[in-house]
Amino acid sequence: MLDFWFEFASTYSYPAAMRVALLAERAGIVVRWRPFLLGPIFKAQGWNDSPFNLYPAKGRYMWRDLTRICAAQNLPFKRPTTFPQNTLLATRVALVALAQGWGEDYCRAIYTAEFADGRDIGGADTVAAVIAAQGKEAEAVLEEAASERVKNALREQVAEAQRLGIFGAPSFVTADGELFWGNDRLEAALEWTVNRK
Amino acid sequence: MLDFWFEFASTYSYPAAMRVALLAERAGIVVRWRPFLLGPIFKAQGWNDSPFNLYPAKGRYMWRDLTRICAAQNLPFKRPTTFPQNTLLATRVALVALAQGWGEDYCRAIYTAEFADGRDIGGADTVAAVIAAQGKEAEAVLEEAASERVKNALREQVAEAQRLGIFGAPSFVTADGELFWGNDRLEAALEWTVNRK
Repeated sequence: MLDFWFEFASTYSYPAAMRVALLAERAGIVVRWRPFLLGPIFKAQGWNDSPFNLYPAKGRYMWRDLTRICAAQNLPFKRPTTFPQNTLLATRVALVALAQGWGEDYCRAIYTAEFADGRDIGGADTVAAVIAAQGKEAEAVLEEAASERVKNALREQVAEAQRLGIFGAPSFVTADGELFWGNDRLEAALEWTVNRK
Repeated sequence: MLDFWFEFASTYSYPAAMRVALLAERAGIVVRWRPFLLGPIFKAQGWNDSPFNLYPAKGRYMWRDLTRICAAQNLPFKRPTTFPQNTLLATRVALVALAQGWGEDYCRAIYTAEFADGRDIGGADTVAAVIAAQGKEAEAVLEEAASERVKNALREQVAEAQRLGIFGAPSFVTADGELFWGNDRLEAALEWTVNRK
């Protein structure tokens, strides 16, 4: 078992989300998808924006690096106009979808809308369209996503990420508590899990 | 040809420095060693310390991650008491040593002193001992390292790193200007270079 911690606003979470299922299946490992929000974690260390915006050289590098990574992975990539995006609604919906068993497809569809099509996933209309494309009733799902239960579940998820020492996304946490940060650490996290089974 | 930009204070530059020569040789690529200082670059973006000290969660992760990487690479690792270390003198000496043809061994020996033996490489005594261990006269080398010519060469090296968009170490820059950041991007930088030869 491996926990995959991701944030829809996180650029490197996109290639990770698109390849984690296949790589984990090959390794015989069950992956638990754990959506969370980086905003509160960044705020706690004094950042009010993405470090890729706060530090322009790092930001320029990241977009170039992401373009190369997507090309190598044969993944379509289109830089969205807005970065980072407001992912609160999409993330609450992800909790609902994952609990109902259609969450992984939904998450990949959100990432595709955002980073392959370059769309804004912050608004209810885009999220509703992605829900509908999964064959689900958008209105009912959005209503549940707005419930106190789901809001609290997301708050608890962010608090757990902080307790685990997570400071960026994607992150992978093994059953024995090893933290691996970054799309480029997915293989190492899987290997660690295989070696300790 | 691939430029290997490194800083002696940079933890991830250690495993990179210890493996770059072998990997590049296998790929048939000449590597140019480019020591520089991260301090001025960090200061320019408002940091007065290593980000691994400024952001404790990131720092805790880095030490753990480095331990795992060194173990996987069969590289001895001992966390030095002082971090980051003052690398000004060691870096000036590196410029002298690289110009004289014994620089790569010297750089690996500095990294070994710092991260395998956990020693402080900030002082002239440690640097002198490393120079002597390369069979060179420490006094003469240190005198040259203190010359205006070498001081200016290092300033120019840092300025070039900034012009190239370098914001961290290790970094790899290909002949056609592609920047790759991080020990974990060494393979990608070599592959890029091979594919464009």
